[in-house]
Parts: sequence; structure tokens; C-alpha cells
Amino acid sequence: MQTILRSDTVEVKISTEGPVVIIGEKINPTGRKKLAAALQEGNFGYIQELAAKQVVAGADVLDVNVGVPGLDEVMVLPQVVKAVVSQVNTPICLDSANPAALAAALAVTPGKPLVNSVNGEETSLRAVLPIVKDRGAAVIGLTMDEKGIPNDPESRLAIAGKILERAARIGIPTEDVVIDPLVLTVGADSNAGVVTLRTIELIRREFGVNISLGASNVSFGLPDRQTINQALLALAVGAGASCVITDPIKLTGTVRAIDLLLGRDLYARRYITHFRSRPKEND
Amino acid sequence: MQTILRSDTVEVKISTEGPVVIIGEKINPTGRKKLAAALQEGNFGYIQELAAKQVVAGADVLDVNVGVPGLDEVMVLPQVVKAVVSQVNTPICLDSANPAALAAALAVTPGKPLVNSVNGEETSLRAVLPIVKDRGAAVIGLTMDEKGIPNDPESRLAIAGKILERAARIGIPTEDVVIDPLVLTVGADSNAGVVTLRTIELIRREFGVNISLGASNVSFGLPDRQTINQALLALAVGAGASCVITDPIKLTGTVRAIDLLLGRDLYARRYITHFRSRPKEND
Repeated sequence: MQTILRSDTVEVKISTEGPVVIIGEKINPTGRKKLAAALQEGNFGYIQELAAKQVVAGADVLDVNVGVPGLDEVMVLPQVVKAVVSQVNTPICLDSANPAALAAALAVTPGKPLVNSVNGEETSLRAVLPIVKDRGAAVIGLTMDEKGIPNDPESRLAIAGKILERAARIGIPTEDVVIDPLVLTVGADSNAGVVTLRTIELIRREFGVNISLGASNVSFGLPDRQTINQALLALAVGAGASCVITDPIKLTGTVRAIDLLLGRDLYARRYITHFRSRPKEND
Repeated sequence: MQTILRSDTVEVKISTEGPVVIIGEKINPTGRKKLAAALQEGNFGYIQELAAKQVVAGADVLDVNVGVPGLDEVMVLPQVVKAVVSQVNTPICLDSANPAALAAALAVTPGKPLVNSVNGEETSLRAVLPIVKDRGAAVIGLTMDEKGIPNDPESRLAIAGKILERAARIGIPTEDVVIDPLVLTVGADSNAGVVTLRTIELIRREFGVNISLGASNVSFGLPDRQTINQALLALAVGAGASCVITDPIKLTGTVRAIDLLLGRDLYARRYITHFRSRPKEND
């Protein structure tokens, strides 16, 4: 199954057959003071730099999140999207929990963006799916609902099914819904990884849709986070994930290695190209 | 299924349910000039150092290979095993293609070692299985035969089946045969990784035995080999491998992260312990 995203000039295919699509996560002020300050000051130059660096490092799509307490997302999200798309040609992943901000940003985003996210809560389904449908966008569905994030794969699968069913009912094609099975912090719950991996397998088998995963929070609070994040990427893609939201500066090499080992990189061309062109690790 | 290995004092369980058992690969002179020289000079102090370093880094078992052109393996393999077991308490994996050297080394190895290896060739089956049976050892079966290493998972599965059947026929319990599905260099054949991973899944499903994999040669000739080796470990364990032959100094952290993500490390205890105690990376 293929989920097509577009900018004005670039088309990105998220395919269940791979290769893995990388959504750059770094335009998100959570835990990034310099970016939070840039957003508050309207310093879009810094954000454009972050955009360019991630694309050079291998991001296929850029996530844009402006969630700083006190900031008017409805006003700022569209402004930041405009600044980013004036700098790079990648499709955009609009990241907000605020449906009005998503609607305002959708109106100024070129091509076919990805909306991050809807979840199984009734209020979310009712507010987000119609604007995704109106704009002809694609959407990430999170496997959580009014009761939170379930601890068992079967309940997460059921929420994925509910989101897919509600999307289909208002006319969003199944291939335009990407499910994120969510991964909690493995330092807080030793079972967090295995629940997510099992959920990926179940969703892949039951619905055959594309699966996206954020691969950074899993290691929160633990030493040598990079090693855990790398291992999660490989396990998740091996289980069926086709798209990752992560730091391309740190993890594109791992993604390229995974695709190489899964037979998706003839003559190791993409792996070697990345190695030759990769930027240095810094912010 | 469990494969039990023993030294005089330590028991190691390789279990299909995990956690992953690490066989330290560094006592092998292939591509290691300093070790080749030490073997030729009879400098066992250096070999004992390599043994101790690997155990500190997280090796559960130590592979011992003395394959230097011109060296008499039948004489030297037992000598090196004695030197190693006088230094560390881990079970030993005797690594030789020479049945006489294996027999000589088995006679001096305490506990229950692992023999590396037998393969599907008639000469290998006839020479190696009887000495494994006589000594009550366990054995690694490589999925190759007279015609080489097959390019397809089904043929590798068939060779594994042949080895298991021949072992059973002379009285070696199935749990004492660990299958190594072999991984070729992905830089030479873009399909090498996917054939091995698929072979692991097939063997796990068909025979339910423990599966071992050498996780270093896959990246030969490519840049940033560590990233490829890390990804292979995660994909292979995710597919069903329970044992890896690798460099514990470089890759124990990745193995601990994989076990953590697969729900085999309560409170991340082993992961954190490894991080705190890990030695620096050098030879």
C-alpha cells in the first residue's frame, strides 16, 4: 500500500514495501530551548536552517510543530510552514493537537501534506478527519483514545481499526491513513517495546496500511539513547513499520543500513551516498 | 528450546526466548595481525588479555580460532583453550574446520563446549558429529554443503533440516544443535541480508531450534560498518536469532538495547549495568 505526499515539486511515497521514509522531527520546540526562543521571537531564519540541515541529512518529509506554551498556534503554524516551504522542497507533516491550527496551516501548505495527528477520541475524530478530507491530505492516526494509551497490542489494534473505519466513512482513502502504534519510554515500562512491536505486526497483518513510529522517546531517561533508538528502528522496520519520525542527522545512517539489509538498496548505492554526504552531528 | 553450555563453574543457556547470548569473536586471527603473530610466537598472554577484555565487555561464551596458515591447529588449539580457560570462566566455542583439531581441543576443554562447526557436506557430517556426540558437546550447524551456500532461504532451510536429522540419528539431542543461517557480504550482494533474515524465520518456525549468527562479515567493504552490524543484530534477533558471534566490545550495548526493547530486561537493569561498566573501545 502506498501513501503519497507532495510538496509543490516533490512526491514522496510511503510504501509498505519500503524503503523507509524519514520524517525529520527537529522542528519541534519540546525540549529544544533555542527553537522555542526562535519561535517566540519570530526568528524564522533559525527554523529554515533546521529545515535545510535535516533535508541534507536525509529527511524525506519535515514535521512542523510550534507548540510553545503561550504561543498562538493558529497564527504561528501557518507562518512557520510558509517559512519552511520557501526554504526546502520536501512535503510537510503538520504537527499539532489544535484542529484550528491544522486547518489554518493546511490552507497555506502546498501539495499534499501529512496531518499529525488524529486519535481514537471522539472529539479528535470529529474535528480532524473532516479538515483532512476537505484538503485531500493524508493523516497519522495514533492508537490512543479517551482512556489513554492501552497497555496491550489488541486494544491498540482496535483503536487503529476505529480510526480507519471513521476515515473511510467520510471518504478518506485507507491508503491516506498512516497508523502510529506509539512507543512509550522503555525505562519506565520494560514491556513498552514489545507491546509496540507486537502492535506493528498486528496492524500490518490486519489492515496492511503504512505504519509510522516516533523513534526517539523510547529511550528517554536512559544512557546512550542513540543505541536504543537505533535498535528500535531496526526492530520496528523489521516488524513492518514503513515510516519513522526521527532525527535524520543522527539516524539516517541506521535507516539506510536497515533498507540495505532488507534488500531495498541495490549495490548499497543509497547507503554509500549517505555516508559520503552526511553532515556532522550538531544542532 | 534451550541449549546449555558449561565451563567448570559457569552455565550459559542459549534460549529461543532470549535474552541474546553473546559469543565473543575476537580470538580469531583472520584479519588480526597482532593475534596471528601472538599465535605464531606462542604469546598466550596477549590471547588471555583478549579473553578477559571480551568477558568484561559482556561476552557469555568465547570463540577460539587459531587458523593461521602454517600453524598446526591440532597442537595449538588445545594449548590456546587451556590458556583461555585458565584466565576466564566462560564456556568455550571451539572454532575450526579441522576435525582432528576439534577432537584434540574437546579432550582438554572443561564443561560442555560448543563446536563451531559442522555443515551439510557429507565429509563434515561424518567427521564432526561423532566427536560432538562422544564428548556430549553442542554444535553449530552451518547452512552450506558441497554446492556452497545456497542463494535461497528454502535451500538453506533444507540443509539445516539435514544437519538436525543426521545429528538426531547418532543421538545428539536437537537442543544441542544451533543453526547458523550464514550471512554474506551485503556490499557484494544486495539480497544477502534479506535471504539470511528469511532463513532465520523459516528455521525458527520449522524446527524451533536456537539460531546463531555472525554479525560482522555482513558489512565487509562498506563504510561505517558498525551501523550496519548494529542494524543486522536487531533485525536478526527480531526475526528469531538467539545467539550472536560478534565483537562484544563494540556491540554488547546494542544487544542489551535489543533485549530491553523485546521486554527481556526488567527495569533496564542489564542495559544500565552494561553502560556503567563498559570498557573503552580499543583492541
